This record gives sequence, C-alpha cells and structure tokens, in this order.
Amino acid sequence: MSDASVFVAGSDPKVVALGGGHGLAASLSALRKVTEQLTAVVTVADDGGSSGRLREEFGVLPPGDLRQALAALCGDDEWGRTWAEVLQHRFDGKGPLSGHAVGNLLIVALWERLGQHVDGLDWVARLLGARGRVLPMCAVPLQIQAEVIGLDPADPAAVSIVRGQAEVAITTGEVLNVALVPNDPPACAEAVEAVRSADGIVLGPGSWFTSVLPHLMVPELAAALHETEARRVLTLNLAPQVGETRDFSPEKHLEVLAAHAPDLRIDVVIADDAFVADQPALAAAAATLGAELVVADVARNDGSPRHDPERLAQVYAKVLDD
Amino acid sequence: MSDASVFVAGSDPKVVALGGGHGLAASLSALRKVTEQLTAVVTVADDGGSSGRLREEFGVLPPGDLRQALAALCGDDEWGRTWAEVLQHRFDGKGPLSGHAVGNLLIVALWERLGQHVDGLDWVARLLGARGRVLPMCAVPLQIQAEVIGLDPADPAAVSIVRGQAEVAITTGEVLNVALVPNDPPACAEAVEAVRSADGIVLGPGSWFTSVLPHLMVPELAAALHETEARRVLTLNLAPQVGETRDFSPEKHLEVLAAHAPDLRIDVVIADDAFVADQPALAAAAATLGAELVVADVARNDGSPRHDPERLAQVYAKVLDD
Repeated sequence: MSDASVFVAGSDPKVVALGGGHGLAASLSALRKVTEQLTAVVTVADDGGSSGRLREEFGVLPPGDLRQALAALCGDDEWGRTWAEVLQHRFDGKGPLSGHAVGNLLIVALWERLGQHVDGLDWVARLLGARGRVLPMCAVPLQIQAEVIGLDPADPAAVSIVRGQAEVAITTGEVLNVALVPNDPPACAEAVEAVRSADGIVLGPGSWFTSVLPHLMVPELAAALHETEARRVLTLNLAPQVGETRDFSPEKHLEVLAAHAPDLRIDVVIADDAFVADQPALAAAAATLGAELVVADVARNDGSPRHDPERLAQVYAKVLDD
Repeated sequence: MSDASVFVAGSDPKVVALGGGHGLAASLSALRKVTEQLTAVVTVADDGGSSGRLREEFGVLPPGDLRQALAALCGDDEWGRTWAEVLQHRFDGKGPLSGHAVGNLLIVALWERLGQHVDGLDWVARLLGARGRVLPMCAVPLQIQAEVIGLDPADPAAVSIVRGQAEVAITTGEVLNVALVPNDPPACAEAVEAVRSADGIVLGPGSWFTSVLPHLMVPELAAALHETEARRVLTLNLAPQVGETRDFSPEKHLEVLAAHAPDLRIDVVIADDAFVADQPALAAAAATLGAELVVADVARNDGSPRHDPERLAQVYAKVLDD
C-alpha cells in the first residue's frame, strides 16, 4: 500500500496527531498512509538526552520529539529518506558532540536564524519533502512535574514530587498525576487552529503521562481539543511502559486520561488485541468517555511492542471515515 | 549582472578553483558569474576553530573550508540563500557547541552516514542548489608544517618548525616554506580528474602558505596541475596577510610559489592596482612563471581587503576566454 491510498473516494480528511517521541512517530507513520492533510502537534517537555542538553545550553524548546515527527513524515523517495536519516543521525564517541542528533542541531540553528519556531520547522519539513506539518504544542519549554507514591520505603503511601520528563518516565513509584511548569503556557496558535479545523484528532500512543496527557494541560490547546467538531480517536499503547505506567491496565490508561480531562469526549478508543485482557471492562471504560472500543491486531509481527504502520493505517482509515 | 551571464556566446568553460577559506570563497563568488561548470578543490589542513575540534573529536577531514566553498556556490534563490545562511550559522555562548558552524556538523554527519567524502559534499551541494561542485584536495586530514625564521630573539636567523595551519597563519616570524604531513597524501581522484579536464584553473587568492600552496604538494594533484592543458590563472591577494605573509610584496608571493613548484607555468597573474607598488617588477616576476600580468581594480569599494565579485568576474571572464 502506498501513501495516502486508503481513502479511494473523496478528499483527504484533515487529521491532527498529538503526542511525542516514538509513539507519535508510530502514529504518523500510519496516518501518512491515510491522509495528505496531516499535522503533528508535539510535546515540548523533554529534558533528557540531546534535547535536554540543548535546552540547558541555549534555553530553546527541546527539538528531539519535533525532529522525530518530521523524520516520520519524510518524503517517500531517496531525497526524503536520506535527509531523514541524516537528521536522525547521532554522533557517537565520548566527545562534546556525542549523543547529539544532527536534526536537533539543525532545528536549533533554524530557530536562531529565523526567530520563529513554526518557520524553522516548516523549513525542515520542506527539506524532507514531508507529508505534513509538525508544530510544537506551545512556544515555551516545559517541565513535567508528577505526584508519585511508593518512592519512600518507610512510608509507601507518601506522595513525592518528581520533576522533569526524563525522571518521571523512569520513576519506580506509581504516578498519580502530572502537571506542567509553567501551568498556563501559551499554546502554539497554528496548533490550536489545526485542532479546531480538523476532521479527525488522534491522541496517543505514547508515554501516557509525559507525551499524551500534556496536550490537555495547555489551556488554549485543551479548549480546542474539547470544542473541536473533529472525531477524537485515542490510540492505546501496546503494553504498559516500564516506569511511568508499569502495571497499568488499558482501563487504567483511560481512567488516568479522564482524571486529567474530565469533560473530554472521545469517539473511538483503539486497542491491540494482545493487550486487552478484559474486553468488556475496557469497553465499559471507553463508554464512560463516550467512545466506541475498536480492538484489532495493530502490533508488528516481530514481537516488538511497536505498532505496525500498515495495520494501524487500516484501522485509522476506517474509524476516521465513519 | 546575473550569474553566468558574462559569456554570451559558446558553452561555459570548465573551471577549477583551488584554495581554501575566505580567499577561495571570494574566487567562487566571482567565478559562478562566469561559468556553470565550476569545481572547487579545497585544502584540508585546517586545525583551528570548529574544524579543528571536529578533527580532534572524530578524526575527520576539516569541513570548514569545504562548507564555506559550498555556501559561496549556493543557489541564487530563497531556498539556496536560506540553507547557505543556516550552514554558515555558528552557535554562540560558552557551551560545548559554541563556535561550531552548523554546516560543519552536517557535513561530518553525512560523511559518517554515507562513508564517502565526495558523496557527502555532493548531497550538501544538492541541498544548496549549488552552482558547482566542491571537492577536498585529498582524502586524509593534513597538517601544515612551516620553516620560520625570526622567532628566537637570541638568534634571529635560527630556523624554527611551526606546526599546524592555525599556528602558521599567525606566526610572528617569516615563513620560509611549508610542507605537508603526511608528505604524500592520496589526492581526491575527482579533483585530479577535474583539473586534467579543465579549460581554466584558478589558484588564489587566499592564505598563501596554508591555502594556496598546499595543492602543489599533493603529488597526484600537483602532477595534474603541471600537465593540464587548461589556462592557469593566479589571483594575488589584495594585501599582505598579518602573520604568514606580513610584509610580502606581490613579487615575493610569486617567488614563494616558484620556490615550491619550480616547473609550474602560469598563464595569467591577476593583481589589484592598489596593491601593486612596482608594476614593472611584478610583470617581470610574472614573466619568469611564463605569465602575463593583468592589473585591474578588483577590490570592493568599501575599503575592506576583499575582492569584489562583479569586478573579479569581469577579469576572470576576459582572461579565461582568451
């Protein structure tokens, strides 16, 4: 199946995918097969690795998740694939550049030259011949702050504050909730507009607390997500994530979402059949959000906990077309 | 005058410009107006600044002069100029990335991904929509080693060895000669072929000992420069260079060239009228190389010691067409 070939009639739906990291890249790899009108809206709370070092050195938005989303949308030819590989390339060794992804450095340079986040990302998209647009969810770098229990052996019920996406993602405690610092960041205007004018919205998969939920905490973006007339699709992860969602059932993922955005209505919840232990319970949890549950085989055959772009695309095509 | 508009009849000449740094960039900025068949062959002995740090961290060819030549050839539109600006962009501040030019990092990444120097540079040229090709003079990083007098106050005639392009360029002594380490580096095959099949060769302007002469010390490249049927044009600097050619007259520049390549014949020597104090002496020095002297106003009007691309292009067009 080639790109954007699932819909055979009518014009492509305008789809906005929200998330970060590998989860968003997986969603985009599928959605690029479904529509040519695709916008990614990306978390900007990463404080680890190359992105964390660039935040520290230059005070910029963390570029890593933006780079990864752009690479997932690269043109389907030698040009697009080569530049995507180069942008994803990481320097190795033990020197000062070790671990930096080339695309992160290029994005920061474009921001410094052009002075505009969206302009800089649009130039990278043009370089890649990208099948869509990539936007940050807001214009200031964020910190994630989580309330976690189970970190104090002497008092397992004590609530600790864990700060920073990198720390929250690997906490050995149980995450109760997350918040953003600052707690009312200015949304990216283009992202808000994309959500408001979309036909379909896709949340997840991805690190639940640190990549999926943050979008619901940026006030203007959250308002747009609540008010848009788009179909809202929530894609569950294929497995609990070591660290922030260890031992979380699929139902628990939905409960956590509802706790952070009690008024958000969802139209469709997509779950992989291998992760669903109790389908009636999950269907009931989905129903409390207003959603129909779609259970399908959307994982890769290789046993890795990753979505298969073709299979996920087939499901997206169906649920976005309903 | 738009690019490549000087020649109004016939096909463009194949021109190879050899040098490094700002001097080569100045030559290329002029030559791109003269021909669309342009190849730059660039020294790879820089060991200072961003290039020096990348050599040290990764053992690669110093990319800086290659980047600068590529930027000088960028496409004459928003796309080419924007990417050239981005590649020329240097990070500032005091952190680990400070001083690195983005294009240097991109070139090193391409070399690591593609495993081939020429391939990597051709990809950057395609990115820029470049009006020509940029090649390294050889495939291994070089060190420049100079014999210098005047560094020992107790014995002004004592000969010292100064190692490294960055050190040679700023020596307070008088440079007698330079050599490469290793002294028989493998030439870039594409550069040798370009020289052999060229209609015109342009040496200089540029740092005389560290950017212009090194090409004559790479054995296969030197052989090609001696044997090619192309017209050989030597462009003198606009002024002596603080450090390596302090107090050097234009004649002295030619003597130094002849001392390093006694059998090299030159067809035309181009000198700026403001730098020529004794035109008969310079004409005589040129004649010993077999060259006609062309004295013209090729400097910028702003008083800076830089060539004016339009004026230099007019002279190149004339002397390459003869």
